[in-house]
Amino acid sequence: MPEVAPKRGFEIAEYETRLSAAQYLMARHGFDGMLLLSEPEIRYFSGFQTLFWQSPTRPWFLFLPAEGKPIAVIPEIGAALMRRTWVDDIRSWSAPAPSDDGISLLIDLLTPYSKRGATIGILKGHETGLRMPLGDYERLISGLPGLKIGDATDIIRSLRMVKSEAEIEKIAHICRVASRTFDKAGKLFFEGQPLSEVFRAFRMACLSEGADDVPYLVGGADQGGYNDVISPPTDRPLQRGDILMLDTGSVFDGYFCDFDRNFAIGKADELSQKAYEVLYHATEAGLDAARPGVTCRELFSAMQDVISTFDKESGDVGRLGHGLGMQLTEWPSHAAFDETVLKEDMVITLEPSLSYGSGRIMVHEENIVIRDGTPRLLSKRAVPELPVIG
Amino acid sequence: MPEVAPKRGFEIAEYETRLSAAQYLMARHGFDGMLLLSEPEIRYFSGFQTLFWQSPTRPWFLFLPAEGKPIAVIPEIGAALMRRTWVDDIRSWSAPAPSDDGISLLIDLLTPYSKRGATIGILKGHETGLRMPLGDYERLISGLPGLKIGDATDIIRSLRMVKSEAEIEKIAHICRVASRTFDKAGKLFFEGQPLSEVFRAFRMACLSEGADDVPYLVGGADQGGYNDVISPPTDRPLQRGDILMLDTGSVFDGYFCDFDRNFAIGKADELSQKAYEVLYHATEAGLDAARPGVTCRELFSAMQDVISTFDKESGDVGRLGHGLGMQLTEWPSHAAFDETVLKEDMVITLEPSLSYGSGRIMVHEENIVIRDGTPRLLSKRAVPELPVIG
Repeated sequence: MPEVAPKRGFEIAEYETRLSAAQYLMARHGFDGMLLLSEPEIRYFSGFQTLFWQSPTRPWFLFLPAEGKPIAVIPEIGAALMRRTWVDDIRSWSAPAPSDDGISLLIDLLTPYSKRGATIGILKGHETGLRMPLGDYERLISGLPGLKIGDATDIIRSLRMVKSEAEIEKIAHICRVASRTFDKAGKLFFEGQPLSEVFRAFRMACLSEGADDVPYLVGGADQGGYNDVISPPTDRPLQRGDILMLDTGSVFDGYFCDFDRNFAIGKADELSQKAYEVLYHATEAGLDAARPGVTCRELFSAMQDVISTFDKESGDVGRLGHGLGMQLTEWPSHAAFDETVLKEDMVITLEPSLSYGSGRIMVHEENIVIRDGTPRLLSKRAVPELPVIG
Repeated sequence: MPEVAPKRGFEIAEYETRLSAAQYLMARHGFDGMLLLSEPEIRYFSGFQTLFWQSPTRPWFLFLPAEGKPIAVIPEIGAALMRRTWVDDIRSWSAPAPSDDGISLLIDLLTPYSKRGATIGILKGHETGLRMPLGDYERLISGLPGLKIGDATDIIRSLRMVKSEAEIEKIAHICRVASRTFDKAGKLFFEGQPLSEVFRAFRMACLSEGADDVPYLVGGADQGGYNDVISPPTDRPLQRGDILMLDTGSVFDGYFCDFDRNFAIGKADELSQKAYEVLYHATEAGLDAARPGVTCRELFSAMQDVISTFDKESGDVGRLGHGLGMQLTEWPSHAAFDETVLKEDMVITLEPSLSYGSGRIMVHEENIVIRDGTPRLLSKRAVPELPVIG
């Protein structure tokens, strides 16, 4: 690890800023509180960070009142860790407890709100889910007959889309780590290597470069281009003439990079070279268009205009990039449906893709921060021509 | 990798068996279909396996009719991969599409059910969540006014708790991989090594031994015992007299191991040695009790009886083990509330824990399969006395 990693965690001031911004928006939306259930949101407002979320057994709750600090209602197994955050009011129960997994604690907390007919925001919108049993949610709501439930997705979305400098530095760090790993592709990958071993070699190298983890790694390799971008690897050995793509979501201190690289093994066919150049230029068009005040639809169009010179039908991946941060993919989407206006300090991917040849697809991806003027590249820019390795 | 890994994937016969077992139980519960939204359930019935689920952007749906094969309603980006499974009927849309993310496709599919007042099962119970926007779920339900919704948790739970031999071999394999990695602890970990580097060394070694990934790795280290078992690592260097614990959920072909190991760095204090021995014997008691026909409550008591000879209050982790397989933790729970009767071919963890000293905790964990007679150990049994390394 040739560089010093950013400091882990955040200053309390950062949580205070997040909370007051949320409370300002809650007031504007007429919400008397927000009940959060999901990992990124609970971490965003409390600093509570653990891989324990991978266990689906226990629900976790963080309540943001209209004024004052967050209140945690969590399983006892997490109380010690939560006490190390800036949250003071921690209410816990011995979980799992299928007959009452935090529900009566929540009803105690929210009954005063229910009695005065208050409105509480929860996440109900696009790119969210309900991380608790639906049956428990229905019981909770029916136990709070006066409570009105609103959708807080717009509030959370608008807050989380714009990153602080401390957040940007974490993403920049993991982007550098993954960029250094991709720079070693010529040493890591070789003809005859099973794709599963390509993945393993990438994971180990990326950890060695400083990633905390490499939770997301997908890709493909096949003659004259790959045909799928979300599969786990097979044991098929790399062959001369393969186009190899690896797309990684590696993590540092709970923040993701998300970008890919393409390589030709031994030699590159002309059509793949051409596809690569089109995507390189589509990304350039994206870099030129990505400015504060531009909409995601416009950014999408700037890239799509280049892609359509080569691929009339275009692929059907639904979008050409997205937000990035605590999750591998976040709001917004660079797509025709998304009128989100880009703002300074949004961290996004540019991810143009196309179909070509006989059912082949190609995807490029870079990670950037929107700045006043040209965006800052967080990933090390891919080379302009399809690199040949192995 | 000194051993041949099991074949990836499953024979189609395995999916046919899972489906007919589900349809038999659906008929008994009066369900005319089941609508599944979550990664493990969709994978269980279709074989659809991808890390792409880490992106929260798109919902995915698999419908199991009362008769006939599953029907996939999924984003177009996953259609190529789904076509490689045994599922024939694949309905896709260009996602994300916030205004209609699969909802009209689902309404088309389910309207005949709604018209005849049929009952559809979805997961609403313990250890489940709703992996789609709650707002979309509410729109779906209101678009199907005649449809009755039942809770399918008991059906899915009873199916998934009992593993096939092919599933057991995948879990056994990743348990061997992680066991070999723990066997190298004396070479991997040393005094002065920051805990974050301990984690990194474990991850790289476990990948090198044959894990596809090490998505879950938690632990702690401190003088005379650790005090938290779910935190990410700090940069604190290992010190002589530390007790180090690492708990890993490593993965092969979509199946988890989940066990931990404890080590003393340089020297072991007497109290930690004693705690270790108590937990070793509690695990022995668990191994002696884990038989078909025994309830999880009884298994819990067998371990708790040993623990309470040392720790009167016991910890508050809520249970002393759980199911294991496609997820890091699955039903059932070894806890006083769980009357689940153990059956042959259930894969479970035995995870006794205790509190001791000044706020210290210790956890042991092994992975086993319930058999007719003594259970089969999948993890290599921990040594009887706290090992000293470094």
